[in-house]
Amino acid sequence: MKKTIIILASSILLVAFGKSSIQKKEYIQTKKSEIMTSENRLQIENLLAEYQKALVNSDAKLAQFLYTKDGIFMPTEAPSGVGKEEILKSYEFVFSQIQLDIVFDIKEIEIEGDMAFAVTNSEGTVHILANGVKAPESNRELFVFKKVSGEWKIARYMFNKTSAK
Amino acid sequence: MKKTIIILASSILLVAFGKSSIQKKEYIQTKKSEIMTSENRLQIENLLAEYQKALVNSDAKLAQFLYTKDGIFMPTEAPSGVGKEEILKSYEFVFSQIQLDIVFDIKEIEIEGDMAFAVTNSEGTVHILANGVKAPESNRELFVFKKVSGEWKIARYMFNKTSAK
Repeated sequence: MKKTIIILASSILLVAFGKSSIQKKEYIQTKKSEIMTSENRLQIENLLAEYQKALVNSDAKLAQFLYTKDGIFMPTEAPSGVGKEEILKSYEFVFSQIQLDIVFDIKEIEIEGDMAFAVTNSEGTVHILANGVKAPESNRELFVFKKVSGEWKIARYMFNKTSAK
Repeated sequence: MKKTIIILASSILLVAFGKSSIQKKEYIQTKKSEIMTSENRLQIENLLAEYQKALVNSDAKLAQFLYTKDGIFMPTEAPSGVGKEEILKSYEFVFSQIQLDIVFDIKEIEIEGDMAFAVTNSEGTVHILANGVKAPESNRELFVFKKVSGEWKIARYMFNKTSAK
């Protein structure tokens, strides 16, 4: 990662060399902010990949870890999990009922300072543990993220279905 | 509103008068940002009040007006309405099926630059137009807002139920 930044920074300086002082400053500023944005974007994509892993592996502790301290989990037809303790319990309950095999498709990520959001779709199968039934599962998700101590976390998360069952 | 700002600004200057130059600068900066935040908060509260009005009056045009150009409406068990055209059609369809009499309870609003989010609950009754049945209706909402040309708009909006029907 550091190497990439150094190479990118060198390229910026080289290109900026042929421009006026004000142009140079503006060019470097724009490039810097582009690098920042793509760094943040990558971190959020990784966070979503980790979240998918937590769901697929029924790992409630990992799911909990990915939230901010004041995080809120708002699953369809279930009460909100507010804060780390309740979030852990919510996921433990979910994973005691079902096993998920799903993949997230990221539709968009938008970032503003230390806040961001993403819209995703998830598709796959749900295995209902009580009766062994496996069925198709698909949802649409809205995530709000916050950057806390340099790390992106899930701050608010809601999902619902795009059609009646 | 202008009067309030002038009074607040005068109070800031008066209080700042007794402090050192750096303290004064910091104090004014903090107070300015507090006023900005509460101004933004008020505008978002007004936006949510307008949205409630759109729902209660079955006013699809008003609902549409409250979204950003690239807005996305993600209602439970229905496809996403993406962009102004689809958003209007989605609300027109909803209002052709049901009439809502609900009140929003704002749980929280958080703002970062030109992005913000809110979690709300809504409660009231739904009148199903096809059969005349009236039933209790309650939902939990996650709004993402964007400030466009100085005005807060709904950028993304999803809702779901907190318990099975």
